[in-house]
Amino acid sequence: MIVVLTGGTGGAKFVEGLRHVVPPEELTFVVNTGDDLQWWGLYVSPDVDSIIYALAGRLSKERGWGVKGDTFYCLETMKALDEPIWFHVGDRDLAVHLLRSKLLAEGKTVTDVARSIAEKFGIPSRVLPMSNSRVETRVDTPSGELSFQEYFVQRWYQDPVNSVRFAGSTEAEPAPGVIDAILQASAVILAPSNPISSIGPILSVPAIREALVRTPASVAAISPIVGNNAVSGPAGIMMAAMGFPVSIGGVAQAYEDFLDVLVVDNQDKAVAQKLQAAGFHVKVTNTIMKTRDDRVNLARAVLAACEAEGAAATSPK
Amino acid sequence: MIVVLTGGTGGAKFVEGLRHVVPPEELTFVVNTGDDLQWWGLYVSPDVDSIIYALAGRLSKERGWGVKGDTFYCLETMKALDEPIWFHVGDRDLAVHLLRSKLLAEGKTVTDVARSIAEKFGIPSRVLPMSNSRVETRVDTPSGELSFQEYFVQRWYQDPVNSVRFAGSTEAEPAPGVIDAILQASAVILAPSNPISSIGPILSVPAIREALVRTPASVAAISPIVGNNAVSGPAGIMMAAMGFPVSIGGVAQAYEDFLDVLVVDNQDKAVAQKLQAAGFHVKVTNTIMKTRDDRVNLARAVLAACEAEGAAATSPK
Repeated sequence: MIVVLTGGTGGAKFVEGLRHVVPPEELTFVVNTGDDLQWWGLYVSPDVDSIIYALAGRLSKERGWGVKGDTFYCLETMKALDEPIWFHVGDRDLAVHLLRSKLLAEGKTVTDVARSIAEKFGIPSRVLPMSNSRVETRVDTPSGELSFQEYFVQRWYQDPVNSVRFAGSTEAEPAPGVIDAILQASAVILAPSNPISSIGPILSVPAIREALVRTPASVAAISPIVGNNAVSGPAGIMMAAMGFPVSIGGVAQAYEDFLDVLVVDNQDKAVAQKLQAAGFHVKVTNTIMKTRDDRVNLARAVLAACEAEGAAATSPK
Repeated sequence: MIVVLTGGTGGAKFVEGLRHVVPPEELTFVVNTGDDLQWWGLYVSPDVDSIIYALAGRLSKERGWGVKGDTFYCLETMKALDEPIWFHVGDRDLAVHLLRSKLLAEGKTVTDVARSIAEKFGIPSRVLPMSNSRVETRVDTPSGELSFQEYFVQRWYQDPVNSVRFAGSTEAEPAPGVIDAILQASAVILAPSNPISSIGPILSVPAIREALVRTPASVAAISPIVGNNAVSGPAGIMMAAMGFPVSIGGVAQAYEDFLDVLVVDNQDKAVAQKLQAAGFHVKVTNTIMKTRDDRVNLARAVLAACEAEGAAATSPK
């Protein structure tokens, strides 16, 4: 069983490749819920849905979120009714938010709901929200504290970031199945997601980070930083705010207590050699996912790196 | 001020005519909420929405409910997710249900919400749900007790009807403004709606029926029965179940404690003469609304009948 920690559009893109390389029933996803939100009175879990849509082959590749070919007629009407529309929800996407909100109102957990929605989409992989309790990513800016979606979607990540915190994380328990999956995995992969706002909330659940340290599985991370910039989104801004260098070295540092191998882009070969000289295990490959082949090749390279790491391991971590 | 008691598709059709004859700011609607329902986790108030759509010129004339030209992509996805879809909700219509549900969850009353939605549609008329409390139309059938929508939409009104009751009506208060509107109206019109399932719930609120008896205004009703059949829907079946003749005489009987004038179709001229001979005031005209002209002419005829009634009145009722 391969476990993938993921969130955001980078994570969904990586999953688009991985699903063609690993039988879906051998995949378990532990998904960020720190940027879940109440929207139009519904509970929306964007990262969980992106993974489900990606696994179902229904993720919009143009947008990187939502359903392929979706329409926005409900949103147009919401606009006419003076309701906020900065968070875009398509008509087909809305069905999933309605169903999730209905099931939650009936007392189901986010884990039950994710399983149920994944099943309805015919997905044999396990899609586990990181926790059944609410852990909320809060972004402190000069304009005040914002939710992740306010910062990222509503305000186009234009605010300077003072810091990021995960409200509720210290009391949060991992969702059922998460710890066992990590401890029993053959490999654990951190998707090329924002280390602060996508992977950060998952790691902020204390028992999950501990399990990553304890697991005998090889733990690999794909750097979302190439050169000294994020491939997309505010990963660089947020890493800098949290005191990490915006580089593959910064990514290694963010994960250093549990990481076995860091997968970085060819552009970072020189820096990778320095990291390796300092004792880090680094795999250099193409990490920029423009085509289906790029995505599939990256998935293969990461799996090969995990396998090599496992074979090379001579002592428990 | 003219007050219209209404519900169902017959009521919305009549409103389509009335809005071209009376300035909208002089119209108050008291609307059936007995067939409101929870659907996909949302609170849906079909009769209130039909009146709002009709007044906004956005009611689908083909269907008689919902928004003109609406699409059903969310519904298609709901079907794919194995959720029930027998109650059809369009993508644009959904926006109104989302907004209403959100406002109700924030503690607003159905009256606040209807006012707010009507304002957003630019409607200067007053659209008042009959009550802020839940009064639920329940249809007793050999297969058990059904909600109105289960009976009417899900099961195509094929079940024999034993009786109809309005759960919660005896304790229900009229919504704020309803009683004053009825008492201060220049005319009160009962739309050609189902006397049992559309007008019945409104009349089941004790203070509303009392106000109709007390008001100095002329009270007119348009018969939804022509010949011995309902123009559409289960009005005939339900009247029979409740012990009323399925005829204009039955309609007169259902409203006899407060009705001043019954407006009936030309086809019922002979029966109308008998009713008149028995002391009822009856206006005979074309009540079948096929064209815009039909709707406008019916509205004019009803208003004229109310005016004549008012002029003829020599003593308070």
